Amino acid sequence: MLNLRFEPEAADLERVAELLGATQFFSSDEIAVGVELVAERLEKGQASGYEFVLAEQERQLVGYTCFGPVPCTHSSYDLYWIAVHPELQGRGIGARLLAHSEQRIAQMGGWRIYIETSARPQYSPTCAFYERCGYRQEALLADFYAPGDGKVIYGKAL
Amino acid sequence: MLNLRFEPEAADLERVAELLGATQFFSSDEIAVGVELVAERLEKGQASGYEFVLAEQERQLVGYTCFGPVPCTHSSYDLYWIAVHPELQGRGIGARLLAHSEQRIAQMGGWRIYIETSARPQYSPTCAFYERCGYRQEALLADFYAPGDGKVIYGKAL
Repeated sequence: MLNLRFEPEAADLERVAELLGATQFFSSDEIAVGVELVAERLEKGQASGYEFVLAEQERQLVGYTCFGPVPCTHSSYDLYWIAVHPELQGRGIGARLLAHSEQRIAQMGGWRIYIETSARPQYSPTCAFYERCGYRQEALLADFYAPGDGKVIYGKAL
Repeated sequence: MLNLRFEPEAADLERVAELLGATQFFSSDEIAVGVELVAERLEKGQASGYEFVLAEQERQLVGYTCFGPVPCTHSSYDLYWIAVHPELQGRGIGARLLAHSEQRIAQMGGWRIYIETSARPQYSPTCAFYERCGYRQEALLADFYAPGDGKVIYGKAL
């Protein structure tokens, strides 16, 4: 039974760090950024520009998304983070988190969602996931993250 | 005689606001963001992630750039701002500012520079300027800024 929450609490700082670490997908720099966005939300509320969907199962954080309006745009949103605990991947939790995030973005007046990810082979399942969820590749910036590590930009119109 | 400075001072908060306003190119929201980046630099120094090249003529700020490393990338930089006073455009000041910015980025270990701009017709001269300076269009995200107002991403490898 999946329970969804939309407001982070202080204990999520550690839970998000643990979850991101468990995926073995993110560098310590990246994890620090992920946790920082939770801290910004706790400190500034909606003015932080960061919105969350947090998924819990038996009181454990099993996945979450973080997204927000792109400054200086009319109605574009960025999905900054999506992560699901590795032991629970492949059960549709990511798709549910993404669908709920899209719903909230639409409620907040968003018309477009962008997701940026790495073009490295490690991320092929991630890219396939976004494509299954209706996102299409809008751009590929070669060598963006590092030499040989390009950035893919996915987009979806709501 | 153009004088270049690399460190903003407190008086630049107002000068940058005036300069950006004079171009009649930016909304008040955008101008606020431009000024905020100067404030961040004044407060945090290099840790702000914002670097500047400021061009003065007869002690007036006539143009500037603002750029910085893209977080979580190896060696990519974003050019956040470039502006030249409208009365002094067409004299190569923008190209000199951009060349000096590229030089500083290369010194700081940057290999790639990205510039994002609007695809609206108002920005055609801007796009032509970037192309003359050796940037090539890497992506076009339709309707990114607003319906009918797409985002162009230019890139240059150093």
